Amino acid sequence: MLQFCVGVYAFFYFNMSKNKFQEIQELGFSALIEKFKSYTGIDHSSIIKGIGDDCSVSAQREGFLTCTTTEIFLEGVHFDLTYTPFHHLGYKIVTAAVSDIYAMNAIPEQVLVSIAIPNRYSVQMMEQIYMGIDAACKDYEIKLAGGDTTASHQILSISVTAVGSVHEKDIIYRKGAQKGDIICVTGDLGGALAGLRILLREKQSWQESDQELFSPDLEQYEVVVQRQLVPKARKDFVDAIHQSDIRPNAMIDLTQGLIAELREIGKSSNCGIELYSPAIPISLETRAVADEMSEDVDKYAFYGGEDFEMLFTIPEPIVEKMMAEFDDFVVIGRITDKEKMLTINTGEDKSYQIEI
Amino acid sequence: MLQFCVGVYAFFYFNMSKNKFQEIQELGFSALIEKFKSYTGIDHSSIIKGIGDDCSVSAQREGFLTCTTTEIFLEGVHFDLTYTPFHHLGYKIVTAAVSDIYAMNAIPEQVLVSIAIPNRYSVQMMEQIYMGIDAACKDYEIKLAGGDTTASHQILSISVTAVGSVHEKDIIYRKGAQKGDIICVTGDLGGALAGLRILLREKQSWQESDQELFSPDLEQYEVVVQRQLVPKARKDFVDAIHQSDIRPNAMIDLTQGLIAELREIGKSSNCGIELYSPAIPISLETRAVADEMSEDVDKYAFYGGEDFEMLFTIPEPIVEKMMAEFDDFVVIGRITDKEKMLTINTGEDKSYQIEI
Repeated sequence: MLQFCVGVYAFFYFNMSKNKFQEIQELGFSALIEKFKSYTGIDHSSIIKGIGDDCSVSAQREGFLTCTTTEIFLEGVHFDLTYTPFHHLGYKIVTAAVSDIYAMNAIPEQVLVSIAIPNRYSVQMMEQIYMGIDAACKDYEIKLAGGDTTASHQILSISVTAVGSVHEKDIIYRKGAQKGDIICVTGDLGGALAGLRILLREKQSWQESDQELFSPDLEQYEVVVQRQLVPKARKDFVDAIHQSDIRPNAMIDLTQGLIAELREIGKSSNCGIELYSPAIPISLETRAVADEMSEDVDKYAFYGGEDFEMLFTIPEPIVEKMMAEFDDFVVIGRITDKEKMLTINTGEDKSYQIEI
Repeated sequence: MLQFCVGVYAFFYFNMSKNKFQEIQELGFSALIEKFKSYTGIDHSSIIKGIGDDCSVSAQREGFLTCTTTEIFLEGVHFDLTYTPFHHLGYKIVTAAVSDIYAMNAIPEQVLVSIAIPNRYSVQMMEQIYMGIDAACKDYEIKLAGGDTTASHQILSISVTAVGSVHEKDIIYRKGAQKGDIICVTGDLGGALAGLRILLREKQSWQESDQELFSPDLEQYEVVVQRQLVPKARKDFVDAIHQSDIRPNAMIDLTQGLIAELREIGKSSNCGIELYSPAIPISLETRAVADEMSEDVDKYAFYGGEDFEMLFTIPEPIVEKMMAEFDDFVVIGRITDKEKMLTINTGEDKSYQIEI
């Protein structure tokens, strides 16, 4: 696991970039690809061929399904290199991709990463990205099995494809929610947005200052900043349910924020959603940030993206049994028969509805 | 198949972009994704779930292998929208991805496409890209099964992932070349570079002119310009060898140019390469462009990328048998035991060597 060095990471990376700047053209793309061949995560039994041919090659097994997902990340849109260390960026893009695999209740096996690099970045910076990718691959027990490294004129663009497998009896779609199901969520929500709020505030205050280096003191915000910069996909949850005989009826990972993902479940399953907003798990650290910003912390949980927690629905009688297998989740609502309607119950005898 | 309208295509697209410009923000990304849901190629029996969940889902079969490849394409680096119609761009990115699947002797089943779109492009332009993707998916008999649509600040970035299957007895790697094998190539080479040369010349002459619209007369260059803008992957070749009992020992598609791909085969197979340069297939149209540019046409074939022809090696006794199954290929060389050496025999009692 990568260590997160609060307060000094930015200083370290910005200094490093000045002292050891080997241009990518100087090394050449072929040599760059050779250099990063050691960062390939760990072998997975299904992967027959990783980097070094036209494709990665993996074995198929009768009765299993292949799950494939791809995402694209652009500098200035999806990440900001002012406050994102390169190795955290590498880690996070893998998390984002494998999280989609876990959301199908599948086990990720490989990722393929394509990076388009502008001239202003050095070989060392790229190495940091690959170190982050490698660390994530090791945490998720997968192989970096392919991709593409190419030049870019303006911005760093990264695309990540993740591939996993699941037995056909175990796959969980968004569409499986049943009337009466209990809606649950792992971990706590809004933390990634709270971290982003702090980082953006610190960036602005640095831009308005005359300091050369961006080196904010983030110690008291460590939990939320880490949620933003090096989020973890819920491998632990999927591993736990694989070891049990419990299968949620529907599942999705929290990428776009709770409300958006609940709407996806409602839409795909043709059902209504009732959400008990006081039950939404929010950490003390996230609450502290919202208080400091004079903002409504519920909004962080509702609309904050990139928490990468698992949102799932299960029949009510199974909730306790699941709690015995895995205890880092809470009940936040119920599936109803009011199609196309998301009802948010605030617990103060008030509720409001959103069309799905 | 998309029609290539020589001479008028640019005029048409540039005019369209002025008359019907619906901003993407105006429509919103969710609505954009909804709008393009009809452009999904054609169903493939293996694909259980396409767009609409966290992942695409495909069935596995015992004894089969999954081949996965991903590439990233950036505006200004990999394509130039001055002379590339959006639907040709859509077609070409699918060709580039499935070509890697064919190069493993696998059958492509699905592509996943992520597009990051800057504000200056319209909904109609994106629709043209998806129409091109859809047309390619239909030609290659595959499904557009997923992806990501997101905003971009500056440039259009597209990543494409292709997934295919092959029986384990049929897979062909780069590493399989054997001493004495005959080296063959399908179609003809250098055409895509010849087309690029013409398009760049016309662009420059337009930039130096005072014309508002880029509408070059490309009629006499139709063959090579089409090779550059809407290249075809060699589905026909892979289909033909699948219907026979012939299997090349090594295979690769021509993305980076002949010399680069021969070096890949030599390096992966630990063998030497002898190339008979007079045997390299070059079309009359490509020769005409090289003549017009006063350039050496052999260089077009050696170093020109994106021809997407298949380069393969087979034992000598099988060459004639293969010719009976599929006749659009020629012999261009031989695998030798001179490891790490590529010998180019020019046929005039001269030869020179390149280290692999």
